[in-house]
Amino acid sequence: MKTTLEHFKLNRSILKHILVILLISVTAQISDAQPNQTTVEKWDIFELSLNGPQEGNPFLDVALSGRFIRGDRVIEVNGFYDSNGKYIIRFMPDAVGKWSYVTKSSENSLNGKKGSFRCKISSPNNHGPVRISNQYHFAYADGTPYYPFGTTCYAWIHQGNKLEEQTLETLKTASFNKMRMCVFPKNYSYNKNEPQYYPFEGSAPKDWDFTRYNPAFFRHLEKRVADLCKLGIEADIILFHPYDRWGFSEMDAESDYRYLKYITTRLSAYRNVWWSMANEYDFLLRRKPMSQWDRFFEIVRDNDPYSHLRSIHNGDVNKNYDHTKPWITHVCIQNWDVKQAKEWRNKYKKPVINDECEYEGNIPMPWGNITAREIVHRFWIMTTNGCYAGHGETYENPEQILWWSKGGTLVGESWKRILFLKRIMEEGPPGGLTPIGNSWVWSRVSGGMNGDYRLIYFGEHQPVAWFYGKPKNVRFKVDVIDTWNMTITPQDRIYENNEEIPLPGKPYLAIRIRGVK
Amino acid sequence: MKTTLEHFKLNRSILKHILVILLISVTAQISDAQPNQTTVEKWDIFELSLNGPQEGNPFLDVALSGRFIRGDRVIEVNGFYDSNGKYIIRFMPDAVGKWSYVTKSSENSLNGKKGSFRCKISSPNNHGPVRISNQYHFAYADGTPYYPFGTTCYAWIHQGNKLEEQTLETLKTASFNKMRMCVFPKNYSYNKNEPQYYPFEGSAPKDWDFTRYNPAFFRHLEKRVADLCKLGIEADIILFHPYDRWGFSEMDAESDYRYLKYITTRLSAYRNVWWSMANEYDFLLRRKPMSQWDRFFEIVRDNDPYSHLRSIHNGDVNKNYDHTKPWITHVCIQNWDVKQAKEWRNKYKKPVINDECEYEGNIPMPWGNITAREIVHRFWIMTTNGCYAGHGETYENPEQILWWSKGGTLVGESWKRILFLKRIMEEGPPGGLTPIGNSWVWSRVSGGMNGDYRLIYFGEHQPVAWFYGKPKNVRFKVDVIDTWNMTITPQDRIYENNEEIPLPGKPYLAIRIRGVK
Repeated sequence: MKTTLEHFKLNRSILKHILVILLISVTAQISDAQPNQTTVEKWDIFELSLNGPQEGNPFLDVALSGRFIRGDRVIEVNGFYDSNGKYIIRFMPDAVGKWSYVTKSSENSLNGKKGSFRCKISSPNNHGPVRISNQYHFAYADGTPYYPFGTTCYAWIHQGNKLEEQTLETLKTASFNKMRMCVFPKNYSYNKNEPQYYPFEGSAPKDWDFTRYNPAFFRHLEKRVADLCKLGIEADIILFHPYDRWGFSEMDAESDYRYLKYITTRLSAYRNVWWSMANEYDFLLRRKPMSQWDRFFEIVRDNDPYSHLRSIHNGDVNKNYDHTKPWITHVCIQNWDVKQAKEWRNKYKKPVINDECEYEGNIPMPWGNITAREIVHRFWIMTTNGCYAGHGETYENPEQILWWSKGGTLVGESWKRILFLKRIMEEGPPGGLTPIGNSWVWSRVSGGMNGDYRLIYFGEHQPVAWFYGKPKNVRFKVDVIDTWNMTITPQDRIYENNEEIPLPGKPYLAIRIRGVK
Repeated sequence: MKTTLEHFKLNRSILKHILVILLISVTAQISDAQPNQTTVEKWDIFELSLNGPQEGNPFLDVALSGRFIRGDRVIEVNGFYDSNGKYIIRFMPDAVGKWSYVTKSSENSLNGKKGSFRCKISSPNNHGPVRISNQYHFAYADGTPYYPFGTTCYAWIHQGNKLEEQTLETLKTASFNKMRMCVFPKNYSYNKNEPQYYPFEGSAPKDWDFTRYNPAFFRHLEKRVADLCKLGIEADIILFHPYDRWGFSEMDAESDYRYLKYITTRLSAYRNVWWSMANEYDFLLRRKPMSQWDRFFEIVRDNDPYSHLRSIHNGDVNKNYDHTKPWITHVCIQNWDVKQAKEWRNKYKKPVINDECEYEGNIPMPWGNITAREIVHRFWIMTTNGCYAGHGETYENPEQILWWSKGGTLVGESWKRILFLKRIMEEGPPGGLTPIGNSWVWSRVSGGMNGDYRLIYFGEHQPVAWFYGKPKNVRFKVDVIDTWNMTITPQDRIYENNEEIPLPGKPYLAIRIRGVK
């Protein structure tokens, strides 16, 4: 029979192991030699590193996968060649307990490797990957509601560490929870600089071996995805885009397919990954016809065992991808006309994120020069219609460091107001908002509901009283929200059903209505 | 041979006759006995008053018309029974010179009356009726461009003289050039008062003889139409509307047809008349099916020898009348979503007036509570897209006198800014604006052109520079217009084609570009 002291020693031993693991890295790095001791937090990454052949082209020649087994569940994941004879299999466990694995490879030296690890409960800030919830909304895998309030820094990972670290610092204060970011470097107005890393072996401008990936590029990308994960930010990874001078948007279909398989193999185990198949895919249609885009989605879907969210972003407002296709998990849209929110919702029957309802800024291009007030206004309209919107900032500055492209610091006025709205959504009932109605009232004023809860946004309307969209058969209280000044003023009384609600008669107000038992 | 003195006597005699005529009324009233002396200004009214039978129901029993002849032109106009045995034929001459006439009637006492009058040139403020010009625009009959900048006081003629005179006083300062106004009294929120006059013989609430018209009602209506004419305001006369407690919206089809014939007979000779078949006709569709509306238009068209402008106004934004129908001269729309302006233009290929892009005000109904800034914004968007918009004001006040319904005074902030835009249009080249383009730029920013002239409105956009939509192959100058503060600031230089135009980076600005030879 064990004494208390023995218990203490045992616990100390476990504690030591845990500390060692934590010290190695945030994502558990383990060697093949000590699988039994390895513990990985649920939804973190178990990484198996194996040595194999370097000759020939291991990217093309070697097939590698792992089967991960827990009870009667079996999950197959692909591995990938990194560099210098190192092969890696990454796995994101989604259930606590013992997981065992066995590898399978076309190479004997990588085949039949066995081991196991223990999956422990997740730490408080780890809620798992984001999933679709309640048809039009999102939640983390642990059930915590997730309301996407994202921003855009397309090429932030291609700016060098100094600026990239500054971007991360900014994101610590500006609590956006999603970042739209490109894999490939960007060639566009305000972003002509060469990147630090290129995804393929070869040299700029266009001398690439599309069959050999640059491990430094991908490790850097992964580091930035992990950095975002630490900050609670989903990485909305844009797999293709047209702003290119290196030929990455012009690869042949086979190279595209191989690239998609490689990047999804490397990144799928990161819980905060979303797949955005392209930015402005329609500007690439001449080279990549629609059938190819569909095939891309099949590859991503089939190679990602965790079914991370998948969507695709249009350029022309009349060229939305057909988001009813089964591989699309949620709708991404670029459209300034936010009063169409309900139409998109009804058309696609999926969550809608209007990533680009134009950006706060002052550059000459009309997509990048709306006022802070206007983008806040558009966020409120999208949100109260049961949809979501995305932020970006495009102010001219002497250094030509515009947040929307390079990151850096935020200089605008909208981001605080957008995050004020995020807090209001997080304070609301879980499950997201459903548009209150389709009548003439609700095409002009925006309102969402959830049970007895209502969030009604008046925008350019300034009524001195309101009597639409109140909950039925319930007493309720009202908060008046100033969306610009970020104040919430509770009204000092309780209403009955048919009572008119007096209001201040100012624009850009919202009201929050909550039922009282 | 006449002496100078005799000449003088003759001239005095003519002068005396003219003075007598002027004293009788503003519109020339003449007796059958002295046709040769009568002179009428072009586009004013020649009115022939005849005595006839009073027995039976003269409204139903007596047919009366007049043929007006000048050279080889013959115009047939209907006459109407007024009251007390008085029958009237009104005629609006459109050409200078001698016009002769002969009457035709089912009654001998009214038949075959002959006479003539002289039509003289119009006075400086009389430009004739408004016509379609340049497909999407308007001009007076004398060719002067007419840019509709109208307002709405639906029931202003039913408020009693004191308030009605106040409305006219307000209109002297607020130089709107069109007024939307109902024939029938109105029963709606903020307008429950009984009118002074009813259009039919009988008594309120619903005891009417729809075969007998009340001359006092029509004389009052005509007086108000003439009052507007004196102020240079087109009377956009709404022939039916659904806001009713007297049964005027529920007459049978025959009564409707008879009413339309009667009112168009009485009013067609007023040069400032426009026919708006209904306000929110779709709310009356249950009682009056579409075939009946089409028939209404045929009656108005066939009974109005001057072809005054004809349109019809929807309620539901999805229930626009089919404005491609041939009797529709211009498109009237009620729609808050002004960024559809180009779509309406392209769909109907006729001038577009968005009469109700919501009203400045603060009442609970969302159509009546947008900010002054917002309605000014919407006017600029409609106008720079080569369309037009309408004003209205709906501020709560203790007396419940809301401009949009009763008239009175203007208390808002938009009307001055709207009339500032009107002045800018009047300063521009004649012929109206054509949208600059349909590209992604011009769905976000609004711009209209006419030759080398451009009027570009940025609205919620605040670029620090601009390079879209400049005239080609021409040097040009730029004025920066602050649409809210009503300032026009010329830029102190001349531009070449490809130069970027620096701008202040503030919202709600416009620029005016004019070619320099």
